[in-house]
Amino acid sequence: MTVTTGAAVPAARVTIAEIAREAGVSAPTVSKVLNGHDQVAPETRARVEELLQRYNYLRRRARQKKTVGLVDLVIREVDSLWAGEVLQGVQSAAAEHGAEVVVTAPHGTTTGTRRWLENVSKRGSDGIILAVTDLTPAQREHVNSLDIPLALVDPVGSPDAGVPTLGATNWQGGMAATQHLIDLGHRRIGILQGLEDALCARARLDGYRAALEGAGIEVDPALQRPGDFYYTTGYSGMRDLLTLADPPTAVFASSDLMALGAYEAIRQAGLRVATDVSIVGFDDVPNSAWASPPLTTVHQPLREMAALATRIVLQGVDTVLPGPTLRMELATHLVIRESTGPAPGRSNT
Amino acid sequence: MTVTTGAAVPAARVTIAEIAREAGVSAPTVSKVLNGHDQVAPETRARVEELLQRYNYLRRRARQKKTVGLVDLVIREVDSLWAGEVLQGVQSAAAEHGAEVVVTAPHGTTTGTRRWLENVSKRGSDGIILAVTDLTPAQREHVNSLDIPLALVDPVGSPDAGVPTLGATNWQGGMAATQHLIDLGHRRIGILQGLEDALCARARLDGYRAALEGAGIEVDPALQRPGDFYYTTGYSGMRDLLTLADPPTAVFASSDLMALGAYEAIRQAGLRVATDVSIVGFDDVPNSAWASPPLTTVHQPLREMAALATRIVLQGVDTVLPGPTLRMELATHLVIRESTGPAPGRSNT
Repeated sequence: MTVTTGAAVPAARVTIAEIAREAGVSAPTVSKVLNGHDQVAPETRARVEELLQRYNYLRRRARQKKTVGLVDLVIREVDSLWAGEVLQGVQSAAAEHGAEVVVTAPHGTTTGTRRWLENVSKRGSDGIILAVTDLTPAQREHVNSLDIPLALVDPVGSPDAGVPTLGATNWQGGMAATQHLIDLGHRRIGILQGLEDALCARARLDGYRAALEGAGIEVDPALQRPGDFYYTTGYSGMRDLLTLADPPTAVFASSDLMALGAYEAIRQAGLRVATDVSIVGFDDVPNSAWASPPLTTVHQPLREMAALATRIVLQGVDTVLPGPTLRMELATHLVIRESTGPAPGRSNT
Repeated sequence: MTVTTGAAVPAARVTIAEIAREAGVSAPTVSKVLNGHDQVAPETRARVEELLQRYNYLRRRARQKKTVGLVDLVIREVDSLWAGEVLQGVQSAAAEHGAEVVVTAPHGTTTGTRRWLENVSKRGSDGIILAVTDLTPAQREHVNSLDIPLALVDPVGSPDAGVPTLGATNWQGGMAATQHLIDLGHRRIGILQGLEDALCARARLDGYRAALEGAGIEVDPALQRPGDFYYTTGYSGMRDLLTLADPPTAVFASSDLMALGAYEAIRQAGLRVATDVSIVGFDDVPNSAWASPPLTTVHQPLREMAALATRIVLQGVDTVLPGPTLRMELATHLVIRESTGPAPGRSNT
């Protein structure tokens, strides 16, 4: 072991929070400087860099950080196939690093999240993955001050420049789903929308609109129904659409669960999926191949998104994401099964 | 703090493994003595008790055991709704005790389990829940020597007298499912069987047979198809049954996933679920209400089973299970939805 001497304060004990306080900036700002992002004003960067040097702060990757052997997955719910896919991805990537996975579903309660954060402070964590959930700015700062890397999977809100984020190409997926229906000859194409606040739902809706406009088909608001990704709104939205004087012959559902709701509304109306009304879903969770008929849907690479997020927190962001970006969207692709068919009156081509 | 003197060796440092070695018995035997079970020969019990006293071994519940704040859930797979229910149950009960959940899916590999056990030895654990998976006898002994409580949820193999086990009333469930079909007027009733090795699958089959025999209906082996709880065997089994000269008008599927496979075989044969062939499943995982038509199925209280197992490991078995039993089966009940109807040729009663 080599002992270094010099003007720097010895021992790498200073935390990001302390540097931030002394520099009069927030902890995320210090993190940005540490990670070389360019969203920091030059004078701020200089002040922070000076303090980092004075306190001999060792950058994360250079430092021999003691690993805890635990990765935290914080997820909105655990009792869904969506969650199972994410957990599977986190688990496989964590196992590559010999780490285990602590799963927490605070169910959107602040006490749940607070208790989890207290535990993390005590026991430590090698990295935190937030899936369709988020922390408050104060909680984010707390995580930063603990020097625990964070990554987001499929975030609900706006992307955050400071945190690595893994998503899917929702806009392209919505467009591919709708284009498939157009290619089958459909002109009256409805949409069952996902949660209004979720950016991914908005991107899917915009992809749907773009495909229609590209084909010269008028976007008819009467064919759009609001929803929340869950079964019930898929069911009621489809039921509504079927009562229209000129109902759609095909519908793009913003999630597989909503597509299942649409199936049931179609069955109750005495109609058949594919033959009478074509349905495309979004997600391609395992059970969707097991719907009857098997669901045509947009595959979202949830496992891969979750695995990449895990590698990012365990290996450092620059070993996983190319270049300066902190946001990556993995490609979606359409999986054609049996819930879509030619528009009524058209022969199968 | 009081210092006690006397013949006993001070300090409660001796482990169950050491007591077992000195007594010339296995660690589980020492555990049984500690827990007051009656499957231990009197002379063995006396020898073990003497050693426990000599080494001043403090019984688990009396001892102020240092908690780690982590509970381990070891489960066969994470990417299924079945697993989501179990995880949900473990999580809610762990949260009551301020504990967090480490989820491990070793996928039946011995290296996966070995690595997990090494981690547990290092970091400790307040309790281990094994769900449809098991440890080798040597691994069980290792867990015992670490003095970590263990409980089983829905075990695949024979119940183990030494370990608390939470299951469901599979036999009664199979009987209720079949009786429901008999009550609807069905006489040709098939079964899609679960995994041959799994005791719960055997119990469901026996419940099916008991209901038929109780109604004076001959048990016809031609109406039984082997399977493994998964979709594909449900699909192929149903397809087979539909090719019979005298096919069944109703089928009991040993899992909800197998029921979904049956749905698809019925659809492909140009028939309708309920109207042409009635289907009952087993599990009642969340998506089963969202099948089209919604699935009539036997509800298995997976969350409650998992939550009880978690309370057992965290609070001690005798605070949860009544009396001397270590095995508890929680009641199943039939949930009638829309996949079952009167036998063809019978009017709805």
